[in-house]
Amino acid sequence: MKVLLTGPSGFIGRHAIPYLQTAGCELHTVDIRPPGDAVPGTRQHAVDLLDARGVRELMKEIRPSHLLHFAWCVTPGAFWRSPDNVRWLQASLDLIVAFLDCGGKRSVIAGTCAEYDWTSGEILREHYTPVRPSSLYGASKAALQMMHARLASLAGSSFAWGRIFHLYGPFEPESRLVPSVIRSILEGHVAKCTHGRQVRDFMHVDDVARAFVTLLCDSTEGVVNVASGQGVEIAEVARLIADMLGRPDLLCLGALPEAAGDPPTLVGDAQRLHSLGFVPAFSLEDGLRETVSWWTRRSAGQSDVVC
Amino acid sequence: MKVLLTGPSGFIGRHAIPYLQTAGCELHTVDIRPPGDAVPGTRQHAVDLLDARGVRELMKEIRPSHLLHFAWCVTPGAFWRSPDNVRWLQASLDLIVAFLDCGGKRSVIAGTCAEYDWTSGEILREHYTPVRPSSLYGASKAALQMMHARLASLAGSSFAWGRIFHLYGPFEPESRLVPSVIRSILEGHVAKCTHGRQVRDFMHVDDVARAFVTLLCDSTEGVVNVASGQGVEIAEVARLIADMLGRPDLLCLGALPEAAGDPPTLVGDAQRLHSLGFVPAFSLEDGLRETVSWWTRRSAGQSDVVC
Repeated sequence: MKVLLTGPSGFIGRHAIPYLQTAGCELHTVDIRPPGDAVPGTRQHAVDLLDARGVRELMKEIRPSHLLHFAWCVTPGAFWRSPDNVRWLQASLDLIVAFLDCGGKRSVIAGTCAEYDWTSGEILREHYTPVRPSSLYGASKAALQMMHARLASLAGSSFAWGRIFHLYGPFEPESRLVPSVIRSILEGHVAKCTHGRQVRDFMHVDDVARAFVTLLCDSTEGVVNVASGQGVEIAEVARLIADMLGRPDLLCLGALPEAAGDPPTLVGDAQRLHSLGFVPAFSLEDGLRETVSWWTRRSAGQSDVVC
Repeated sequence: MKVLLTGPSGFIGRHAIPYLQTAGCELHTVDIRPPGDAVPGTRQHAVDLLDARGVRELMKEIRPSHLLHFAWCVTPGAFWRSPDNVRWLQASLDLIVAFLDCGGKRSVIAGTCAEYDWTSGEILREHYTPVRPSSLYGASKAALQMMHARLASLAGSSFAWGRIFHLYGPFEPESRLVPSVIRSILEGHVAKCTHGRQVRDFMHVDDVARAFVTLLCDSTEGVVNVASGQGVEIAEVARLIADMLGRPDLLCLGALPEAAGDPPTLVGDAQRLHSLGFVPAFSLEDGLRETVSWWTRRSAGQSDVVC
């Protein structure tokens, strides 16, 4: 099993590497930046995925049997409507075609819960909930999913598509909910939140990464929600963090306006994922505790550096 | 109203030109081939739509207010699974982005009934029937539709998408049903067909072209079936043709196997199209008579040339 991993330094990709190594595969990673520190047991390739010719040459050189594709434009906030989504859709099509042309056997790609119609308020199910994205990001991923399925089918290659919900954990971009609450409180500032009654499906990034590796090593085809299946109010997540840090007084719910178009509930049905034998390692409490601990250590480290 | 038309020499595009001229627009056409004979009242541009840079330069030069996009890979038979579908999806995204970046006000693009789920057997309705393409062609068009809607929305530009059903008429590729039956009989050969019980929604290409121009000049947004709303058995179409040519004896139904995956019924709901005030000019009988007459003249002309 020779795996090509895209986005190896990204939020999920970096957490997937240890699981890919444990799975005993020959691991190749591709990133636009020239490889920095070597990651033991991986072969790093510096190619811009937006350069179709470079991708084709790399694919011919490696000829991977498996493709795990995480890379995308993910600048927090901006990614919902960034024109870069078009380029990443086009580049991902080139990547898939090159992989299949080189005899690739199985590809697994990261999708998003934003592909679904969010208006029903019901639990989001892979083969039931309509695909009706309201954002350019969701549309680009949904478009790629349709193309991936048909291209892989025509090539007789196995394929799966993991729809990610709300993940959190070490290395999450700092402006997002969990890190921003943790960091505000660590710095002794008030952590301003919306009303927090939005129900979301949280999953620790380490579990998300392991779910994708499970999917890559499996033969299940089609869409699989990479979700916990459990809904929790954002306010509850923020309260857990504030309590863990011993500063519930610094949490201020209702201080920020709700984002326009923010749906009340986004929870994924996790039955397909669980049917692969996947069991999450982190409960929400354990995952948040580990994340708080990581940011606390990092914050202390950063203070040391500044001093 | 300054219109850029793609695919001006294609099956639908060539029929759309007179209606665009009648609508009084400044008409620009783009085609890979250098313009041959001038079409009065149109400005022809020779640019390869698969060349993103060339398309951007053309768009900056013209700065059209309206875009009518028909061009795609449509080689009969091959287009269902051709890898060219990927390139046309990518190129169409570049075309849309360039149009919107240059301030385009309204774009209308040709989609297909192959975007729909064909398994229900029910009449195909724009906002009810699931989008679930089973072919690469259908997936590529459906992917483009999702992206077109979101890109145009974000740019504050008006957009519509016409899903075409079964069209026929002058200049149809010769290997397709209507021309192949007509030409076989004109040549005195047996016209071999499948059992012909497949129910399809036929529309004369001139009506299809006029429906698209109606849509371009309107402000309706989203998906509109470009369909007659009437189902007719393929056998009935073949019988009408054979009767018009006075040779019902040359029609042989059941001589060819049905194509794999050919659904029993494909009929579109035409209410949205009719709500625009569009009324088809051709009944099926009138349209077939005109088409038989066109092929008969052409056949005679070709014989003259051969002699």
